[in-house]
Formats: sequence, C-alpha cells, structure tokens
Amino acid sequence: MLTNNRKKEIISLKHKKFRQKYSQFLVEGEKSVFELCNSSFTIVETYATRQFLDKSKIKFDLSKILIISEKEMKSISSLENPPGIIAVSNFKDIKFSISDFSNKLTLVLDNISDPGNLGTIIRIADWYGIENVICSDKSVDFYNTKTINSTMGSFTRVNVYYENIYELLAKTKVKKYSCVINGNSIQQMSKPTEAIIIIGNESNGINDEIINISDYKITIPRIGKAESLNAAMAAAIISHKFVFG
Amino acid sequence: MLTNNRKKEIISLKHKKFRQKYSQFLVEGEKSVFELCNSSFTIVETYATRQFLDKSKIKFDLSKILIISEKEMKSISSLENPPGIIAVSNFKDIKFSISDFSNKLTLVLDNISDPGNLGTIIRIADWYGIENVICSDKSVDFYNTKTINSTMGSFTRVNVYYENIYELLAKTKVKKYSCVINGNSIQQMSKPTEAIIIIGNESNGINDEIINISDYKITIPRIGKAESLNAAMAAAIISHKFVFG
Repeated sequence: MLTNNRKKEIISLKHKKFRQKYSQFLVEGEKSVFELCNSSFTIVETYATRQFLDKSKIKFDLSKILIISEKEMKSISSLENPPGIIAVSNFKDIKFSISDFSNKLTLVLDNISDPGNLGTIIRIADWYGIENVICSDKSVDFYNTKTINSTMGSFTRVNVYYENIYELLAKTKVKKYSCVINGNSIQQMSKPTEAIIIIGNESNGINDEIINISDYKITIPRIGKAESLNAAMAAAIISHKFVFG
Repeated sequence: MLTNNRKKEIISLKHKKFRQKYSQFLVEGEKSVFELCNSSFTIVETYATRQFLDKSKIKFDLSKILIISEKEMKSISSLENPPGIIAVSNFKDIKFSISDFSNKLTLVLDNISDPGNLGTIIRIADWYGIENVICSDKSVDFYNTKTINSTMGSFTRVNVYYENIYELLAKTKVKKYSCVINGNSIQQMSKPTEAIIIIGNESNGINDEIINISDYKITIPRIGKAESLNAAMAAAIISHKFVFG
C-alpha cells in the first residue's frame, strides 16, 4: 500500500534537494526499471499498475512489486503519460580515484546544463564502452528524472561522478583533450589508448582554466555553416573517433 | 500595432493545420530571427519588445520591426521564457528533383517523430554541408516551432522536403545506405562521393520496404552495452564518417 506520507516523499524526489535528503531517485518506465533490476543499484521499492503488469512482456518479480491504481501512478510520476511502473532506488555509493583515468577513455563534462544532453552523453558513453563520466560540481544532476529517462537504461552501466574537475584534472598525467571551436582537427589525430575528453557547457564551452591545463585543443571539422554542434553530438563524434580511429 | 485578429492568427501557427492554412510559421529568438533576415525566406512581419531591442547586440532593421509589449510577446510566443523577438515567415517554395541526389550526400529520414531530433539533424546537415534533408510524409513537421528552434538557425540553410520516400528512392541510382542495427560496420566503408543516408524512426527504425531497396545496410560499431543510439546521434556519426572518412 502506498501511504499518503510515502506518496509525498516520492513526489518530492522530483526535486534535487529531496533526492539528496533521502539519497534516493525515481526510475520510470518498463525498460529503465528492467535495467535497474539487473544492475548494482539497490531498489527501495517498485510500484506498478495492474494494467501495466497484465500487458508487459517483461516478467518482473511480482513479489517485489506494490500494485497501485492508475490514479496513484499518475500522482507519483513525473511524466505526462505515466509509465505504469516506477521504482525508487538508492543512490550508488561510488568514489572516483585518480588511477581510474589510466588505460581508458573518460568523458569530463564542464557545466553541462541540459538534463537531456547529460542523459544522451551517458548513453553514448555506454555505447562506446566508456566506464566513467565525470561532471563538474555545477553540472545538471545525474539523478534528475529527465536525465535518467534519456539515458534509456544506460544510467545503470556508466559511473557518473561529481567532482571539482579542475583539481582532479590537475592531478593526472593522462592526456586531456578539450573540445573547442578552434583547435586541431580530430581527423589528424591518432587513436589514443588512454585519454580524457572534455566537453563544455552548451552556451559557454569549457572554462579557460580547464582549457589551460589541457594537453590538446581539438575540433570537429566542418564544411558547412552551422555555428556549432550540440554538446551531445560533439561527445558522440569524438567518442567514436577516439574509440575506432 | 498587433490587432487581436492577427494575434489569434499568429498564436494558431503553433498548430500544423494553421501553418499549412496560411503557409506561414514562427521563428523565435535573437539568433534564429537574425539568420532568417539573412536567408532566402520571405518575412511577413517581425515583432519585438522595446526591452529586447535596447539590449540586443545585433542591429536589426528597426523600420521592419513592430514594437509590442512584453505581455503581447508572451501571448504569441510558444516558449516558456518569451524571447523578445519573433518573426512570422512564409514557407519556402522548393521542389526536390531526382537529379538533386547526384554528386552529393543527402539525408533521408523515415518517419522521424521527435521535433528536437529533426531540428538537431538539420543542424548536423548544416555542419557537414549536406544541402538536402528529405523526410517521409509522416515525419514530424519541419515548421514545428520546436524543430525550428532546435536547428539553431540552420533551418535557413538546409532544404527540407517532404516526399513519398519509397517512390523517390526507387527512382534514383545513387547508392542508398540504410542505418540499421545489424549491418556492416561504417569503419569498413570507403568514403563515397555521392550517397543517400537513410535514418529511421526513433522506436521502429527504417521500414522494411525501404531497407529492401537500399544498396547497403550500415551500422555504427559498438563496444559497450547500450541497446541503441538515438536518431540524431546516428546521423551525426554517419555524416562525419561519410564526409571525412
């Protein structure tokens, strides 16, 4: 049964302040909840409607699901079209260490502000086998429902950290590649075995202090006239190039 | 002066039915309106607030701008944060001919449904110098305000057509590349001098009848576990590969 008190708490998880208070977040929809069940996240509880369970092709463990009405589902969902299944999950307790930069590609995001962009970048990281995404402290919240939804389940497989990225980057010897508008073409690069790819804010790019401690400034070449590519596009193209050459 | 009648007409342009009735659409925001002024589109009228014009760094031709109040701006804007400047533009009257496929890259979209994805793909086309984007008849409307906004001005430089893409593709000898989940890796391809890149619907991919008349099935290689990349990501990575090799 969903008590009024618990309902209020769940609804409050739409706001970062309350997600942080409870160290919990919402996962909505069949695919995302399914991926969550098969991940290392600890699920607090799962709610579904009878109508959803009757139709779903995925066999969820019914002993772990609380059945609620469609009206209750609507009240706790953040989506216009409530999804039929919602899980409340605990945050994952992970810590990034400098040695995690070694022998792999890492994405570092400097003040990404759009939750959809962050979600899409996490999906890209998952596609290209990039284990770690590090966000500057002021970046949009990973546990934002829009971010989680737009990862299409990839949030369960990619580690996302929030750090003072200047301090972190200053400590590592792994080569740092800042994606800027007037750098060297990525076409002229050879494929690195380890690298840190830095993507900037959607409007303001990468902070100068971060660019100054980078080893390379890189650019996606252009033959048309668009002023820029969006942050997620840039992350996709550069990840592809760094992974497959 | 903005009459009540005209205000109603402008507000109605948020809906496809009325855009088609008047053959007009809305362009919102400083950058987009600026690009519109420098394009081959015919502007019907431009509205701006005094507050916006006082602050704008772009010198708009004031003789062509009707000043309206912030309240009026709010009523005609489709955005939560009204932008200060809005133009009403006529549709561009263009027609695609089969010979336009020759000696260049073309993007064909099979039932793209998300306006943000379409806008982003148009921005990608503009970045990579792809002149023409052809949408299947059932694709989301190019003149949708969300689509126009998410092109970041690129809607003025890329020609977007709506066609029966099956009939069109059946008529051309230019090689057709369908982007699917189980095709040949784009890493093994040589750079073509002319090609038609086909991107499918976000959930259902490309229709079988279109795949069947394609010359190649291509896939973006993956080393991670994400089930898919979104349509705009795929368009970005494949366009980059086709243009730069």
